[in-house]
Amino acid sequence: MAALPHPEPLSGESYSAVELSPGDDEVILLDQRCLPAEERYYRLTSVEQVAQAIRSMVVRGAPAIGISAAYGMVLAAAVADTPAALEAAARQLRETRPTAVNLAWALDRMLSLARSTPRSALRLAFAAEARAIHREDVAACRKLGALGAEHVPDGATILTHCNAGALATGGYGTALGVIRAARDAGKRVRVLADETRPYLQGSRLTAWELQRSGISVEVLCDGASGYWFGRGEITLSVVGADRIAANGDVANKIGTYTVACLSQLHGRPFYVAAPWSTVDLACESGAHIPIEFRDAREITDVPFSDEPRDGLLTAPAEHERATPGVVPAAPAGRRRWVPEGVGVLNPAFDVTPAAYVTRIITERGVFLPSLLASGASASGVLAGSRRPPA
Amino acid sequence: MAALPHPEPLSGESYSAVELSPGDDEVILLDQRCLPAEERYYRLTSVEQVAQAIRSMVVRGAPAIGISAAYGMVLAAAVADTPAALEAAARQLRETRPTAVNLAWALDRMLSLARSTPRSALRLAFAAEARAIHREDVAACRKLGALGAEHVPDGATILTHCNAGALATGGYGTALGVIRAARDAGKRVRVLADETRPYLQGSRLTAWELQRSGISVEVLCDGASGYWFGRGEITLSVVGADRIAANGDVANKIGTYTVACLSQLHGRPFYVAAPWSTVDLACESGAHIPIEFRDAREITDVPFSDEPRDGLLTAPAEHERATPGVVPAAPAGRRRWVPEGVGVLNPAFDVTPAAYVTRIITERGVFLPSLLASGASASGVLAGSRRPPA
Repeated sequence: MAALPHPEPLSGESYSAVELSPGDDEVILLDQRCLPAEERYYRLTSVEQVAQAIRSMVVRGAPAIGISAAYGMVLAAAVADTPAALEAAARQLRETRPTAVNLAWALDRMLSLARSTPRSALRLAFAAEARAIHREDVAACRKLGALGAEHVPDGATILTHCNAGALATGGYGTALGVIRAARDAGKRVRVLADETRPYLQGSRLTAWELQRSGISVEVLCDGASGYWFGRGEITLSVVGADRIAANGDVANKIGTYTVACLSQLHGRPFYVAAPWSTVDLACESGAHIPIEFRDAREITDVPFSDEPRDGLLTAPAEHERATPGVVPAAPAGRRRWVPEGVGVLNPAFDVTPAAYVTRIITERGVFLPSLLASGASASGVLAGSRRPPA
Repeated sequence: MAALPHPEPLSGESYSAVELSPGDDEVILLDQRCLPAEERYYRLTSVEQVAQAIRSMVVRGAPAIGISAAYGMVLAAAVADTPAALEAAARQLRETRPTAVNLAWALDRMLSLARSTPRSALRLAFAAEARAIHREDVAACRKLGALGAEHVPDGATILTHCNAGALATGGYGTALGVIRAARDAGKRVRVLADETRPYLQGSRLTAWELQRSGISVEVLCDGASGYWFGRGEITLSVVGADRIAANGDVANKIGTYTVACLSQLHGRPFYVAAPWSTVDLACESGAHIPIEFRDAREITDVPFSDEPRDGLLTAPAEHERATPGVVPAAPAGRRRWVPEGVGVLNPAFDVTPAAYVTRIITERGVFLPSLLASGASASGVLAGSRRPPA
C-alpha cells in the first residue's frame, strides 16, 4: 500500500483524495479507479491533466472535484496569469462534469480572487485560496457530521449509497462524516453500503474507507436494499449530494432517488448531508439541474480490469460519448456484458424531490428542505434542525 | 455462434436453455454464464452433473430448472430404477436451489409417475413425462403471453427485471412472453431491462434474446429505473416469478421488490407472469418462502472472466458457502471489488407482497392476487382477468 506522497495532508487521514504539493507545483490525486486493489497516487503538473483526471473519475465526489479544480487553477496561474488565460483554464475544468455545483463554485471563487489580486501576487494567493477551500471543506464536514450525528440513534442500521466519504471530499466526508461522528460520539452503528452501479463506489470506496476507520460495513447490490427495508432492518438512510436546488431538491448519484422512494414507502428517514458549497440557491428546482449521461461502456464492460491505466490520464476523453448509447463491438480479447448493438441508458445522477428528503444536513444547520434558503444568511443551527418526530 | 446440438428443439427457437437428446441419454444445457459472448452447450450424462449445473447457474429461471430436473430424472432412471435410488436422485436435484417451486413441482410429478409405472417401462415413461413437462411449459408461456398482451397498451415502455424469457423457461418466456405476444399482436413496445446485479441476467440474457427477436431493448443499471419512473416514462413493469404463495405474494429475483415499490409509489401497474407450476398453494404467504443466500463472490469478483469454466461443472459446489459472507482474500492475480474482510449480503430473491402486484398472469387466467387460489380449478380466463382501470 503506497503512502500518500505528502508530508501534511489536509485530509487529516493517512490517505487523501486530493492534495497540493508543498511547492504548489503538483496536484496529487489518489486514483480512485484502482481502489481497493491498489493505492496509487498521480502527481499532475498541468491543468489539462487535472481536467482529464476529473473527467475520467480518477477523482470524484462533488466537494473533492471542487477542491481539485481549485488546485488545478494554481497550476494554471503558474504558466499563464492573464485574465483570459485563467478564464480559459477555468472553462476547461468547468466543462469536465456538469452536475456537481461545487466545481463551478470553486472556480468562481478562484476567478473572483484573480480579479482583486495583482498578477505578481496571484500564484501565492491562489495556492492560499485553494488550500482554504480544502481546509474549509474538511471543517464543514466535521461540523455537519457532528450536527447530523444527533439524528442517528444508538444501534442504528444505516443505508448509504455511492461514496460520500473522505474520498469524496477534502477529508472526513459528508454522509460518512455523519456516520463517523455518530461512532465517535459512542453510538453503535452498522452500515449497509449499496455497491452503486455502474462505478461501484460503494463496494470499492465506501467499504474501503469505513473498514479503515473500523466501522462495521456490509456491501449489498443496489437492488437488494428493498429487501432490507421490507424486513424493517434499516433505521435511516444518509447520502451525499452533487447539487441541492433552492427548493430542497437534491441531485446525487444515480440510484439515490430509488433509496429515497424506498425510505418514503417504508416510513424511514432519508437524510442528505453536504457542505453549503453544494447548495445552489440560483437553481430554482431539481428540474434545472443538468444530469450527466456517461459512456455506455461503464455498464457493458468489465470495469477496473488489470489493463494499463496510465494512458487514461492523457488519452482523449473516453467517457464523453453521446448517450443513450449503443453497445459497440468489443475490442479483440475483451468481453462485453451486453450484446453489441443493444441500447444502453447511463444517467450518472438523479434528482430526489424535496418532499422525500427528511432533513438536509449542512455545516450551517440541519434544515427541513423547505427552509433550506434560510441558511443563506446563517452560520449555526437553525429552527429546522430539530429531530423529526419518531 | 454454435448451433443448438438438437434436431428438433422443443423451445421453438434456434437456441434452447434445456433439451433432452433424441436418444434420451443426454441433457443438453446452454451455459448461460457464457452469454452473450459465447453460445456454448453442455451434454450432461449424469444426475450429478445436472445438479451441479443447476447449482452453478449454467441453467437458471424457475421453469427451466424444473424442466432440467425432470430431464435429470430421465438420466437417473437409466442407471438406477429402484424407488430408493430415484428418491435419492430427486433429493440431490431438489437441494440445489431452495426458492423456485417449479423444481420441487417437477420432481414430485416424476416421482408420482414412478410409483404408478412398472420398472420395465420407467425409462420411456420418464422421457415422455419430462418432455410433456417441457411442452406444457412452452404452451403455458404462449397462452399466458397472449392473455398478458391484452394488458400492454400500444406504444408502451415496459420495464423488466432479471430474465424471464425463453432462456428461463422451456421456450418463449413468461414476462418476455407477454412482451413477445404484444409485439406479435402488432403493438409497438420498447423494453427497458434492469441489468440485474449480481448475475447480470438483464444485460446478458434479456438483452440477448430480445435482440434476437427484433424487439427494442435498452439496458440500465438497477438503481436507474427510479430515474425513468420519476420522468413518467415507464408504462408498466412485468417480471417473472420463482414462487407465488397462495395469498398472491411473489418471490422473484432480488431487486424485484424495489421495482414493485417504485411502481406503487408512481401509480404504475406491476405485473407478474408465470406458469401455474410456479404457484404454490401449499405455501400460505411469502413469509414461508425460503430465500436463498448465495456466495459473496458473486458481488465481490469480476464475473464471467475468461478463465476456464469447464471445471465448474464437476468442482465442489462453489456457491454454497454460508452467507452473510465475509470477503476472503483474492486468489493470486485476481482482483476483488470489495476489500478483504468486509461483509457481503447476497440474498438471491426477495418477496413482493400481493398488495403491490396489479395482476398475476398465468395460462389459467389473469388474476387479482387476492383471487389467485380460484385458479386451482380453472383452465381459462377468470373474473379477475379484466384490465385494471386506466
